[in-house]
Amino acid sequence: MSLRAKRGSPRPRLGAEELATRARNISVSEFFLENRHLLGYDAPGKAILTAVKEAVDNAIDACEEAGLLPALRVEIERRGDGVFRIAVEDNGPGIVDRQIAKIFGKLLYGSKFHKLGQSRGQQGLGISAAGMYGQLTTGQPMRILTRTSTRRPARELVLSIDTAHNRPKVHREGAIDWAIKHGTRVEFELEGRYQRGQHSVEEYLRLTALANPHVRIELEDPDGNQIVYPRVVRKLPPAPRAMKPHPHGIELGRLQAMLGATTRRTLATFLQHQLSRVGAKTAADVLATTGPRLRPESDPHALTARDVADLLRALGQAHVSAPDPQSVVPIGQSALLRALRREVDAQAFFATTRRPAVYRGNPFVVEIALAWGPGRGRPRAGRTPMGGADSPATVLRFANRVPLLFSASGCAITKAMVEVDWRTYGLSQPSGALPLGPLVVLVHVASSWVPFTSESKEAIAPYSEILHEIKLALQHCGRQLAARIAAAKRRQRDLDQLHAIERYVPHVALALQQLLDLSDAERDRTVADLETILLATRGEPAHAHDSMLGENRAHA
Amino acid sequence: MSLRAKRGSPRPRLGAEELATRARNISVSEFFLENRHLLGYDAPGKAILTAVKEAVDNAIDACEEAGLLPALRVEIERRGDGVFRIAVEDNGPGIVDRQIAKIFGKLLYGSKFHKLGQSRGQQGLGISAAGMYGQLTTGQPMRILTRTSTRRPARELVLSIDTAHNRPKVHREGAIDWAIKHGTRVEFELEGRYQRGQHSVEEYLRLTALANPHVRIELEDPDGNQIVYPRVVRKLPPAPRAMKPHPHGIELGRLQAMLGATTRRTLATFLQHQLSRVGAKTAADVLATTGPRLRPESDPHALTARDVADLLRALGQAHVSAPDPQSVVPIGQSALLRALRREVDAQAFFATTRRPAVYRGNPFVVEIALAWGPGRGRPRAGRTPMGGADSPATVLRFANRVPLLFSASGCAITKAMVEVDWRTYGLSQPSGALPLGPLVVLVHVASSWVPFTSESKEAIAPYSEILHEIKLALQHCGRQLAARIAAAKRRQRDLDQLHAIERYVPHVALALQQLLDLSDAERDRTVADLETILLATRGEPAHAHDSMLGENRAHA
Repeated sequence: MSLRAKRGSPRPRLGAEELATRARNISVSEFFLENRHLLGYDAPGKAILTAVKEAVDNAIDACEEAGLLPALRVEIERRGDGVFRIAVEDNGPGIVDRQIAKIFGKLLYGSKFHKLGQSRGQQGLGISAAGMYGQLTTGQPMRILTRTSTRRPARELVLSIDTAHNRPKVHREGAIDWAIKHGTRVEFELEGRYQRGQHSVEEYLRLTALANPHVRIELEDPDGNQIVYPRVVRKLPPAPRAMKPHPHGIELGRLQAMLGATTRRTLATFLQHQLSRVGAKTAADVLATTGPRLRPESDPHALTARDVADLLRALGQAHVSAPDPQSVVPIGQSALLRALRREVDAQAFFATTRRPAVYRGNPFVVEIALAWGPGRGRPRAGRTPMGGADSPATVLRFANRVPLLFSASGCAITKAMVEVDWRTYGLSQPSGALPLGPLVVLVHVASSWVPFTSESKEAIAPYSEILHEIKLALQHCGRQLAARIAAAKRRQRDLDQLHAIERYVPHVALALQQLLDLSDAERDRTVADLETILLATRGEPAHAHDSMLGENRAHA
Repeated sequence: MSLRAKRGSPRPRLGAEELATRARNISVSEFFLENRHLLGYDAPGKAILTAVKEAVDNAIDACEEAGLLPALRVEIERRGDGVFRIAVEDNGPGIVDRQIAKIFGKLLYGSKFHKLGQSRGQQGLGISAAGMYGQLTTGQPMRILTRTSTRRPARELVLSIDTAHNRPKVHREGAIDWAIKHGTRVEFELEGRYQRGQHSVEEYLRLTALANPHVRIELEDPDGNQIVYPRVVRKLPPAPRAMKPHPHGIELGRLQAMLGATTRRTLATFLQHQLSRVGAKTAADVLATTGPRLRPESDPHALTARDVADLLRALGQAHVSAPDPQSVVPIGQSALLRALRREVDAQAFFATTRRPAVYRGNPFVVEIALAWGPGRGRPRAGRTPMGGADSPATVLRFANRVPLLFSASGCAITKAMVEVDWRTYGLSQPSGALPLGPLVVLVHVASSWVPFTSESKEAIAPYSEILHEIKLALQHCGRQLAARIAAAKRRQRDLDQLHAIERYVPHVALALQQLLDLSDAERDRTVADLETILLATRGEPAHAHDSMLGENRAHA
C-alpha cells in the first residue's frame, strides 16, 4: 500500500513574489552549527579530541610564528555527566586586545588563510567552532586569558558567539593578574566522552610530540593523571617562507582577480612581482609568446577574459624553476627516522624526503619513514605496536606536522598505500587493500595549502599530483625494504638448512660410529668435519648466521 | 642526511603586535574557492556533473515549491578544449528582480536553510558555487534569464561573484524578450570533461527521473544528442509541512537561542508555540518537573544557563508524540516498487517505508526497495544491470529524492548495508563488505535536514539514529527476501531431482526392457509409471515445477 496519500499537505500554487519572502542570508556560524559534523563534532567520543586538537594546533602555530619554543598545558576536567571543561594554555606571544574577541568569537577569521605559507591551522574556523560547539551543548561561554608582555597586565575575556550574525558577544572583559610573561589560555565546556586508546587525546598528543620534537606538552586528564610529552630538541624548525603563487598551476580566475587588484602599472612588473619564480627575462619571454594584444607595457587592469586565458596559457608553457623549497618545511629524513625509532620497535627503518612538487600552484613535500619486522624489545605501553604477518600495515598519517586520526579510508595517504603494489617488494597484499605484515609507515605531507577532505581536517583529498608523490616516496622505501625482506628470507632459508644440519649430522655420525667402529673422539671430529663440509657447500662460514641477526644496516 | 638545515628561513622573534597585522576576515567565497573539492569540484570528470546537479536540484525545488509540475531542459555544449557551456532551464515560478543577483552571486544565501522542511537544496551554496567554479576556470560570468509572469517581461542578468566580499558583481541587467510564461534559465561555462556511463550526467538524470516520476527532463549532450526522461505521473508529491523543532533531540544551545529571541512573554506559551507536539497540558507537565525557578508564567528571556539545562532535561523526559509525519514526504512503497521495476530486470521485488524517526530533533524517514534474482529479459542499455552470484550488491542511494553518486564508502547507507548480516537471509557476504549476489537495493532517506558528509552532498553522515533505521528497513526486506531465496533453493533442489529422474529413468527402462523382454509400448508405460511414482515420493505432481518458474508472488 502506498503511504504517499497519507503524507504531506496538498500543494498550494505560489508565485515568485510569495516565495521571495523566504530567501535570506545564512551566517557562516549557523551553517556550521547545523553541519557540525563537517567540523568533527559528530560523536561524543570525538568531540573532546577535536576541540583539544584545534586549540593545540593553534597554540603551536602561535608560538612558532613568534619564534618561541612551544610549551603547552592541556587540562581536561570532568564537570558532570558527560560534560567536560577543557583548558589549553601556551607560552606564545599572546593576542592584542582588539583581536581577542574576533579570533575566538567569529568563524572564518584568522591570519593563516590569506598567506601562502605552511601552518597547522589554515581556515580560521577551528577554535571558534570548538567554542561554538561547547556553547551549543552546555550553554557556557568561552573564557580567554592572554598576555602579550610583562609590561602589560593580562586580559580576561568571557565571550560567546552570536551565531545568527557570526560575531562575538562579550560578556566580561578586563585586566587580570596572571603570573606568566606571555601566552594565551582558552577554556570552554562541552559535552563529550573522554576515551583512551585509539582516537584518544593521549594518542593525538603522543603523535603530535612525535612529529614536533621541539614541543613540550603536559596533559592533566579527567582522573587527575599528569602525563608529560617532553621536548626532545631545543631548536625550532626553520620558518617556512611565505610565497607568491607559482605560474604553473595558477588558475584563470585567480590570475584574473590578481590582475584586477594589482597596484602595478604594467604587465611586465605585475608578472615579476606578483608571481614566484618570474624574473625580467621570464616575463619578457612569456609576453613574447602571447598574442600581440599583450605587451610588457600593457595595463594589467585592461585585460579581457580572452587576454587572461592567453596569458595563462603562455605562463603554463614558460620555463620556470620549481617553487621555492623554503616555502615548505618537511620534518626531514633523519628527524623522521629518530621519531619512528622512538615510537616503534622494529628490525629495520627506512626514510625518504621528496623534493617539493606543485599542485594547483601550491608547493608540497611528501616524506615517509617505514619500520619493518618485529623488534626484539618488549612492547611499550601506549606506543604503536608492530603487527603480525597477517595484519594490515599500520599507517601513521600527518599533514603539516599534525596527526590525522580519522577518515583514513578517504585519505590520499591510504589511497597511495593501497595503490602501490607491495607484492613487488616481497609483502603479501590482498587486492585493493593495505599490505600485510609487520610494517609501520609514517607519511607526512607538508604544504602551503593542504587540501583536506572536510573542515575537520581529518584526511587529505586525493589530488592526483599529491597521490603520485606519495606513491613515489613509498616505492622508493619499498625498494629498500625489498632488499631487506629478500635478505631476511635468504637468512631464514640458511637458518633452516643450518638447523637441519645441526639436527641430522649427529645421527649420521652415530651411525658411522657403529658402522666404522669409531672412537668417541673420532666420531666428534667426524661431526665437526661433516658440518664444515656441509656449511662450506652453502657458501658461508658456520658462524656467519650469528653476526647476521639483529643487525640493522639497511636504512638509507 | 637531514634536509632540515637547508630549508626555510631562520626564525625572527615576533611580538603579538606584529603578528596582529596578519589576521583578517575570510569571506565564505574565498574559503570555498580554496576548498572547492568540498563542493565536488575536485576532478574534471566530476565538475560538469556537480554543476548540472546543483542547477537541476534547484530547478525541481523551485517548481515544487510553487506547485508546478517540473519540466527541465539541460544543455551541455562543447566550447573548446575541455571547456563546456552548461544551461539549465525550468518552468518554475521565476525569481523576483531584487533576488536574482543574490541567489546566483552570493554563497550562503537561500530560502531553504532556515525552514525546517524537506528539500533538495538546503545550504544556499550549490548554484552560486557552480558559477564561481566556472568563473575560476574560464573567467566567464554567469548569465541568468528569469520571468515571473506573462504580465512582466523576462529579465536578463550577467554577473560574476566578487569572491573577496562574497557578493554579486552585475555586469549587465535588463529586460529581454523570452517566449516562455514563467521560468528560469541559468548558463555558465566551466572547465571539465564530459563522461558517459558511471558517474555521468546521464546516470544522474536517469536516477533523478527514477525517484521523481513527476519530473520531465530533456538533455542535449555535447554531441547534439537529445535524450528525454519522460514524466511518468502527472501529480506532484504532497508538499512537506514546515515544522518547529521537536522537544526530543533539541540541543541546549538552540533552545537557549530560541528563548533569547522569542516574542512570547511566558515560558508556557513559548513551549506551546515554538516547539512541535507541545500543547498546554504537555507544557504544564514539563514545567511541573523542572525546579521551582521555572513556572508557566516565567519570562523566557530571563533564564540562566542552568535554568535552560533544567528545562532541556524536562523536555527530554516528557511524553510527546513523534514528529509530524507530514513534515517528511517519502516516495512511498508502491511508487518505489514501480520505479525499481522500470530500472532493473529481476525476479522478485520487495519494498518498505519506515515510520518517521528523529535525530537531533529532525524527523526523517527511511525507505528501501530491493530487487533480487536475474530477470529473463534482455539487459536494457543504460539501466542498472543485475550482478552475478559473485558480484557485490548494487546500492542506489538517494537523499530527499536526489541520487548520490560519489563517496559511497563514507555513507550511512553503505555502512548499514555492510553492517546487516545478509548471511541470515541466505546470501553470502565477505566480512566487512557488501553482500554478494544478484541484488539491487535502492535506499532513500528523506529528512527535513539531511546531514551530508560534505558540502558537495555526496553521502549521508552515519548518525547512529539514521544508521539504525536504515538497518531496520534492510532487515525487514531481508526477511522477505530470505523466504524467496529459500524457496528458490528448494525449487532448484526439486529441479535437480527432476532432471536426475528424467535422465536416469529411460536408462532404467531400457535395462528393464531387455531384462523382461518388454515391447516398446510396455517400456514407455513403465517409464511413465516410474516417473509418477518417483515424483509422488517427492510429494509434488510432475507438472508442478513449470508453474513455479518465472512467477513473482513474493513482494509485500
